[in-house]
Amino acid sequence: MAPTAGAISALRPLPLDAVRLEPDGLLGQWQERNAAASLPHCVVRLEESGALENVRRAAGQGDRGFTGMWFADSDVYKTLEAAAWRLSDPAADDRLRDFVAATAALLIKAQQDDGYLNSYFTTVKPDLRWQELDWSHELYCAGHLIQAAVAAARAGAAPELMTVARRLADLLVERFGPGGTDGVCGHPEIETALVELYRETGHRPYLDLARRFVDLRGHGLLGDGRFGPAYFQDHLPVREAGEVTGHAVRQLYLLAGVVDVAVETHDTALLDAARRLWDDAFHTKTHLTGAHGSRHRDEAFGDPYELPPDRAYAETCAAIASLHWNWRMLLATGGHRYADEMERVLYNAVAGATAVDGRHFFYSNPLQVRTGHDGSDEDAPGQRLPWYSCACCPPNLARLMASLHGYVATTDDNGVQIHLYGAGTLRSTVRGADVEVTTRTAYPWSGRIELAVTATTPEPWTLSLRIPSWCDGCTLQVDGDVVAADPTDGYLRLTRSWGTPTAVVLDLPMPARLVAPHPRVDATRGCAALTRGPLVYCLEQTDLSEDVLLEDVRLDASAPVHVDEHAGLPHIPVTLTAGGTVRRPPTPGLYPAYPTTADRDDAPPRTALTAVPYFLWGNRDPGPMRVWIPVDHTG
Amino acid sequence: MAPTAGAISALRPLPLDAVRLEPDGLLGQWQERNAAASLPHCVVRLEESGALENVRRAAGQGDRGFTGMWFADSDVYKTLEAAAWRLSDPAADDRLRDFVAATAALLIKAQQDDGYLNSYFTTVKPDLRWQELDWSHELYCAGHLIQAAVAAARAGAAPELMTVARRLADLLVERFGPGGTDGVCGHPEIETALVELYRETGHRPYLDLARRFVDLRGHGLLGDGRFGPAYFQDHLPVREAGEVTGHAVRQLYLLAGVVDVAVETHDTALLDAARRLWDDAFHTKTHLTGAHGSRHRDEAFGDPYELPPDRAYAETCAAIASLHWNWRMLLATGGHRYADEMERVLYNAVAGATAVDGRHFFYSNPLQVRTGHDGSDEDAPGQRLPWYSCACCPPNLARLMASLHGYVATTDDNGVQIHLYGAGTLRSTVRGADVEVTTRTAYPWSGRIELAVTATTPEPWTLSLRIPSWCDGCTLQVDGDVVAADPTDGYLRLTRSWGTPTAVVLDLPMPARLVAPHPRVDATRGCAALTRGPLVYCLEQTDLSEDVLLEDVRLDASAPVHVDEHAGLPHIPVTLTAGGTVRRPPTPGLYPAYPTTADRDDAPPRTALTAVPYFLWGNRDPGPMRVWIPVDHTG
Repeated sequence: MAPTAGAISALRPLPLDAVRLEPDGLLGQWQERNAAASLPHCVVRLEESGALENVRRAAGQGDRGFTGMWFADSDVYKTLEAAAWRLSDPAADDRLRDFVAATAALLIKAQQDDGYLNSYFTTVKPDLRWQELDWSHELYCAGHLIQAAVAAARAGAAPELMTVARRLADLLVERFGPGGTDGVCGHPEIETALVELYRETGHRPYLDLARRFVDLRGHGLLGDGRFGPAYFQDHLPVREAGEVTGHAVRQLYLLAGVVDVAVETHDTALLDAARRLWDDAFHTKTHLTGAHGSRHRDEAFGDPYELPPDRAYAETCAAIASLHWNWRMLLATGGHRYADEMERVLYNAVAGATAVDGRHFFYSNPLQVRTGHDGSDEDAPGQRLPWYSCACCPPNLARLMASLHGYVATTDDNGVQIHLYGAGTLRSTVRGADVEVTTRTAYPWSGRIELAVTATTPEPWTLSLRIPSWCDGCTLQVDGDVVAADPTDGYLRLTRSWGTPTAVVLDLPMPARLVAPHPRVDATRGCAALTRGPLVYCLEQTDLSEDVLLEDVRLDASAPVHVDEHAGLPHIPVTLTAGGTVRRPPTPGLYPAYPTTADRDDAPPRTALTAVPYFLWGNRDPGPMRVWIPVDHTG
Repeated sequence: MAPTAGAISALRPLPLDAVRLEPDGLLGQWQERNAAASLPHCVVRLEESGALENVRRAAGQGDRGFTGMWFADSDVYKTLEAAAWRLSDPAADDRLRDFVAATAALLIKAQQDDGYLNSYFTTVKPDLRWQELDWSHELYCAGHLIQAAVAAARAGAAPELMTVARRLADLLVERFGPGGTDGVCGHPEIETALVELYRETGHRPYLDLARRFVDLRGHGLLGDGRFGPAYFQDHLPVREAGEVTGHAVRQLYLLAGVVDVAVETHDTALLDAARRLWDDAFHTKTHLTGAHGSRHRDEAFGDPYELPPDRAYAETCAAIASLHWNWRMLLATGGHRYADEMERVLYNAVAGATAVDGRHFFYSNPLQVRTGHDGSDEDAPGQRLPWYSCACCPPNLARLMASLHGYVATTDDNGVQIHLYGAGTLRSTVRGADVEVTTRTAYPWSGRIELAVTATTPEPWTLSLRIPSWCDGCTLQVDGDVVAADPTDGYLRLTRSWGTPTAVVLDLPMPARLVAPHPRVDATRGCAALTRGPLVYCLEQTDLSEDVLLEDVRLDASAPVHVDEHAGLPHIPVTLTAGGTVRRPPTPGLYPAYPTTADRDDAPPRTALTAVPYFLWGNRDPGPMRVWIPVDHTG
């Protein structure tokens, strides 16, 4: 049965241990790299940056002054959350277990008698507790602590973290709950955290407080700040807002919380508001890579169709937040488009933020870097950096990757739905019967997905397989027989008895595709982008001959694009090869008469263009890159 | 004789009273509006904003706390400078004279015993004087005071201002001169101001200090700040820099000072550095309107060819600074391209910053405003505002407009050069003889320029008339006879005896022209812009029928563009009419397959497109606007 559009909670997440991703697939490789490299790297950097020392100071240990951002506690909590998710794997490193235990012990000491916990305010501004909610990030940090505790609880680790989190949450309920202060945090996060805490504990006041935070937002409690109230999404109540605005991470974290509150309080009007904002975000303000944010000044969404590839802010945390929001929309509605966007943002914006070594990260993820790019500072670095003075992104990546297996599939009363394809095994129950789906696939390098399905019951149930929106002409075999593959609402729904082990082979054809920008997107007019399957491709200067500048390359959109699985580039299993031309600019003048001389040159030199997956760019020689390639209209 | 490329000081400015612009021409109208509306408005706003009150407090009058930006003194000084220029006109309002006298009296009182003068540091941070040069703007404010005093001296007004300025300048020489502190200001301005003071006083230490500030810059004295040392142009000495970088106003003010120092110290190497940076700025980083700055975050130049029309920062002060810099380059070299850029920036970026009422101003001057633009805050307002919390631009416009007559012509040993055409009269001397050139013209609405030339000597001298780079096929008549019009290096040079009054008629044909962006400019690819003479034109939503969005309009580049002098739009003497089509977007999807459905629709509705001068946009109904119009390639 297809989920009903208006339903709340159409799908349910699987338990943490239901899915295991294997390292012979890309998703499993990412998880493994995260465990082996990124997570230990974060732990080291927490120490080096002083973030852990700040907490020690609040715990009465050490006397170094506060260092780093005033919300650096959140780096600790996000790393703690990532470690907790990882601890659910028996193969987790003992040092990680030690880190969690030691940090939990530290937090117990740093927590004040009344439950308050924030190393910056405790040690630097004790008199201003709760007085600067617009920029203080106190509730934001509290939210990340709560998320860490929820993760630990689900992973069966460090139960003392839940005690710390609940003491803090109880303080929040007392202070900000009904009858308490009317206040909201300048940076959303507490909303979704409180709902998760409610789910874990069943304690209703947490949910009520989350709902209160959602409802109080949009009434000007935060003031104008530096960028106006829309920056904080405090200009309009979310139920009335028609557009995503302001700081992209704030907006997207808020919307994750909004859906959580809507689902748990059965508030269809609130979910409708989220749907409306989703339409605005994904129809007018999303980069091809799934990234969000078009302005560096306030790390913000821009106007509709303002999608500059070069100055895309496209913050890593916003990409993660988009995945979180879409996941919640998917659970609430079952709509395939949310899973499509999860896939897009995961394989492009999120994946591209981490270097192949797992120890260097992007904060901003532009779709173009020019020759002569001033990439020396943290605003838009030309290559991934090991850490940032505002280090929100690296540990955010760590917590997402450590919990990635939780996002690939869901369940409902009728069966199991697979949304993201990765090699691994899913074990769940459907109406009391054990079911198991083992997936073998080289996705996204190949569109062939082999599933072995079995169940402890002959009762029929439905295995739903997402057919990505980019896919035309998928084919299906069941036990070797070709069967009709007609997706409904974005899913192939196979309803049958799986009592006998069954081999299902889904084939998603993955030719190279050219996509165009919407005609209202000014910044990429006259360009096309190369994609294959869920992957956006890009050109890098390093793949061009030395005498050709990336700026002067044009795409011959009429030439076939070849898929090459044997290009032999390091870390890059599949490249695309397109036809192109080189249009050397005629004069130094910026504004020649129309048409330009370059347009009139009808025999430009031809060149083969090698495109690599966007998420792997910048892993060889750092240099110019572009996703959107100008099309040679006369070529 | 054409000026030699390597010469220093090829041309000389005329005395302040040499040129009088008449209000039957546009330049004269701007000056009149400035005197009647903008300048009195600035005086009122100085009071309302507290900027004058700050100075009163420093003078021991009143006890209100400091309000506004810490560099608000500069608003006072710039208004004072504007008023001083205006006082050179006998028709100046007595209230303006009173303002200058009262403000000068106030500054005498506010100045400290040792000559220090800065109301913020005196009243708020007395212990930090000169300690925060990176952001303090102390030397910047000092520079504007000096500029005001120089203006007053040249206008023969308020000589006590020169005393105040010299006391402060002498303190700077003592503190920062040879043997003193190595320091530079985070915001250049003092450099050009000190050279001007040297020119006015002949006191060499002022020039030496200006040179020292130029030479000390680029050695990291300012630290990293928030945006890195390139923001302040402190990453490389100007003699080594190959690119304009960072905050555009800072960079351009610095370069004005650099040329001043180069000219007065006969430093050709330093002038070469300015030439090199000019090439970078004007070949890769200048908007079609002559504006500079592509990034809002740090109000900065972007990478080469990063020229977004929508997020053009294009600060009004940067446009003014470009005019100042180009003027100095013109004087130093005689090169026509500098006068071309003066004209471009004056008639577009500078002129557009002021509303027709003279009392509303843009801070940022984008080349596109979208439907749905979030124009509510000061960052990129959708319409001109009466004042800004950082109010640098309005009084900067006032001082430029009040001194505009000083920029239209120059002299050298051989004659007189006219660079900007405005109705009015020029009186000067050439080799001891009086010469007079009276200009009648409706420029830029018409390209016909009628000059009446006379001299008190039969000795031949050269009248040079700039032929703008946009002009093809100019014609010339002398006393009714058509004569050959062959410009050399951008100027028609008429060498003859002018002892008998002579009628010269120069005709610069002004058809509508389509210009293209350089092929490396990504943000406006596939677009053309309409221009006529020096004016850039734009489309406004208000001129489209209600059911057509500006975003969906396409230009038919093959259709003729008509010049209409009778469109009857308020304030707009000449409109252009082009052929266009309407391409309604096919689907809500942001990234359809290439080519888009819109491209395939071969019979889009046609529409006539009315274009208005960019500098007059936003004077009717506020709404979307665009300079660069997508070309319908299939239309």
